[in-house]
Amino acid sequence: MSFLDRIAECNKHDPALYRPFFAAGRQVGSVRHALAERLARMPGIFLADGKSVTLLPEFDTVEKRSTAIDKAVRALEADGIVTGRRNENYPACPEWGRAYDFVIERAAAPHFGIRSFGVHMTGFTRKADGIHIWVARRARLKPTYPGMLDNTVAGGQPVGMGLIDNMVKECGEEGGIPPEIARNVVSVGAISYCMDAADGLKPDVQFCFDLELPPDFTPRNTDGEIDEFFLWHWTRIADTVERTREFKFNCNLVLIDFFVRHGLISPEHPDYLAIVEGMRR
Amino acid sequence: MSFLDRIAECNKHDPALYRPFFAAGRQVGSVRHALAERLARMPGIFLADGKSVTLLPEFDTVEKRSTAIDKAVRALEADGIVTGRRNENYPACPEWGRAYDFVIERAAAPHFGIRSFGVHMTGFTRKADGIHIWVARRARLKPTYPGMLDNTVAGGQPVGMGLIDNMVKECGEEGGIPPEIARNVVSVGAISYCMDAADGLKPDVQFCFDLELPPDFTPRNTDGEIDEFFLWHWTRIADTVERTREFKFNCNLVLIDFFVRHGLISPEHPDYLAIVEGMRR
Repeated sequence: MSFLDRIAECNKHDPALYRPFFAAGRQVGSVRHALAERLARMPGIFLADGKSVTLLPEFDTVEKRSTAIDKAVRALEADGIVTGRRNENYPACPEWGRAYDFVIERAAAPHFGIRSFGVHMTGFTRKADGIHIWVARRARLKPTYPGMLDNTVAGGQPVGMGLIDNMVKECGEEGGIPPEIARNVVSVGAISYCMDAADGLKPDVQFCFDLELPPDFTPRNTDGEIDEFFLWHWTRIADTVERTREFKFNCNLVLIDFFVRHGLISPEHPDYLAIVEGMRR
Repeated sequence: MSFLDRIAECNKHDPALYRPFFAAGRQVGSVRHALAERLARMPGIFLADGKSVTLLPEFDTVEKRSTAIDKAVRALEADGIVTGRRNENYPACPEWGRAYDFVIERAAAPHFGIRSFGVHMTGFTRKADGIHIWVARRARLKPTYPGMLDNTVAGGQPVGMGLIDNMVKECGEEGGIPPEIARNVVSVGAISYCMDAADGLKPDVQFCFDLELPPDFTPRNTDGEIDEFFLWHWTRIADTVERTREFKFNCNLVLIDFFVRHGLISPEHPDYLAIVEGMRR
């Protein structure tokens, strides 16, 4: 068991499982074959030829495409295929920072293999014996990855909100971190990966932030998504990442990236370059 | 002109210029066609078939391979093809952290397209108006990239020395930074690129370090490799990186990586993900 195992798990995917999904003249995602067959039976919305699925070109604005996708998603929900609606719109945006082609309900994004974006924050404090990091345990009743360990604060990136504003908002909701502290988050990069998941494909990007917290500050969940917080010495966390799958899959990458940036994984480590290169697929 | 231009310049290379160079049963480098023809005329050392160049398998230990390569390098120096001997041995090591196949004189490494490794340090200090970074100007008499701007301290990674020990040594030689300060360097990752250069191919890796310097400390060169040091506000450096080619090519990547890690390039920047992904080829 090693850091490289965690990286490999986030990048385990089999292209043979999918057909490309096109919209607005470009590939915006990938769908499993069974889902493609189901979408083929929605002829007013999709064109499906057995090799790919295309949103009909008559939907020629962001609004029209979003409405058509919403109709398909609601049909898939009625079928019980898409579950766990979040009522959060994600942009279908193959290239971050450019225009998006439509918006899609968050819970449906992996089914269509839409790249989703999120924000992850590592909250830490410095003590005499080194860096300690706040670890969250996801609520046992959460629909996704219940009870697993998580980064201090993390959330999806909905459409129409700035990354830092979203990070600050999530700090308040998930960790009870007041804005005057949360505004000190430092943007430190991004991790990316591509993984087969139960609900489809996750070719996702997480923007990463560090926040050095005052030693006397304790996070406190306010939205029911986190059951408890622990302050662990970084070596305990590194050990947990290296030896177990207790952290939600992508949180491992955020932590490994933190260890690299803070000099906690030695450059003499034989896997160092593979680890550094593994942070981005 | 943008950060992405600097990244593209470090990754400009044309595979059609090269033939693979094999040793010890694997590809360890690439040689230009003209050099391959010259090596073909060293039949006691290489086997060259018009498509590739192979170090003869009879050299079956690190020592024998290194001696054979040294003989070839000296012949190329006599021809005036390899110039600027540094008398520093680089390991031919396709995978960092694993065993190397032979050692080669530093000045000859690009001719054989051997991946070389180095250490680059960004020395900075925090002032009321933000981060200031020490910039070095390379000696105008230096054989490579004379007079160009450089990272605070940088050096090649010779065989048989630890990365951090080498970094600390270079801090002393290049910047007059005493070991008690230099030992505070923080390993923060690595950048990699692959570039056609005048003397061959550079498929190189630079290990990156940050060093927060006391506000009253001024670097002072002791080995003649640096003409002067400037302390510039990071915005002036970002501007220089974005708009000019005044920095030695790979120093741009080290600085861009620093900007990303310290939150100085906003994640809202439309090129943000391309920049983050561009740090490793």
